[in-house]
Amino acid sequence: MQPWKTLSRRTKLDHSPYLIVEEHTIELPDGHVIPNWTWVITPDYINVLAVTENQRFLCFRQTKYGVEGTSLAPVGGYLEPGEDPLETAQRELLEETGYQAAEWILLGDYVVDGNRGAGAAHIFLARGAQHVAEPDADDLEEQELLLLSRADIEAALAAGAFKSLPWASTVALALLHLDREDRRADE
Amino acid sequence: MQPWKTLSRRTKLDHSPYLIVEEHTIELPDGHVIPNWTWVITPDYINVLAVTENQRFLCFRQTKYGVEGTSLAPVGGYLEPGEDPLETAQRELLEETGYQAAEWILLGDYVVDGNRGAGAAHIFLARGAQHVAEPDADDLEEQELLLLSRADIEAALAAGAFKSLPWASTVALALLHLDREDRRADE
Repeated sequence: MQPWKTLSRRTKLDHSPYLIVEEHTIELPDGHVIPNWTWVITPDYINVLAVTENQRFLCFRQTKYGVEGTSLAPVGGYLEPGEDPLETAQRELLEETGYQAAEWILLGDYVVDGNRGAGAAHIFLARGAQHVAEPDADDLEEQELLLLSRADIEAALAAGAFKSLPWASTVALALLHLDREDRRADE
Repeated sequence: MQPWKTLSRRTKLDHSPYLIVEEHTIELPDGHVIPNWTWVITPDYINVLAVTENQRFLCFRQTKYGVEGTSLAPVGGYLEPGEDPLETAQRELLEETGYQAAEWILLGDYVVDGNRGAGAAHIFLARGAQHVAEPDADDLEEQELLLLSRADIEAALAAGAFKSLPWASTVALALLHLDREDRRADE
């Protein structure tokens, strides 16, 4: 299978650093040319599901402009210039919750939109989270920190209480990872 | 917790039906006004993980413009005007794979970007999938249909072989759902 080739790119809208829209001219493997493929550049972000040694999962109940009502959400944030995703995840966990974690597991680096880009999502699980400081978040939204049991977070996920795709993804990938480790430990 | 209010909206870029970018003036609960919040409108889409009665999971190996190399992917597609997400999912499964499924489970309706919108992702699990016709896909990308075992699809997910966020989400949410049903059956 051959990739599509980018023949040229033009900026159509520049709202840096939040959003840049480009128009690409693309050549398909069969020679067909698409002259106006829309391509979206938005900041890469992290989400991290942190769990304490007592198996409590750190989540926020919060509002977001794009979400109806309130939603549960794991810790998340945008990469700052030059920042490594793991650094961002550790910084955001500490800033937003006042917790630090002993063990960090990357659950994947994903393009958000397979057709149009829209940045990368770096998803983490953090284990052994401990409260070390007061939160120091600069987020504009109101948020309340919750410590959920495994049964509660899984029920909340199934009920649609994590209303944004990266948030639901983070919880689902993290719980599957923990289950897989439990199965290995049983063998 | 109070939601943010949209005071006004202006279209900044119109590449309908693929992408519309708006600029919103927003009022926060404390009265603070943000005059230039970027808002993105893209088509809603579905992804569906289909599994046969023999517990084989239908996936593609495919190329996508936004993805490096090839990726595994579940069935997916955009809603057509007036279409219900379940209709889209059933249509796309049949068109792309030639399979129909007996049982459809909605795994959630999610906003793709909690800050800027970017459409909704409707995620499904389809059980009892049976081959009834030849595929009739109109997609531009090359793709190869695979039938993966439960162990293989979970290992592929953990290895990062589903490279786009909605694809990894779909697999993770579907596997968690199946595990939860298995646990219930054991009780």
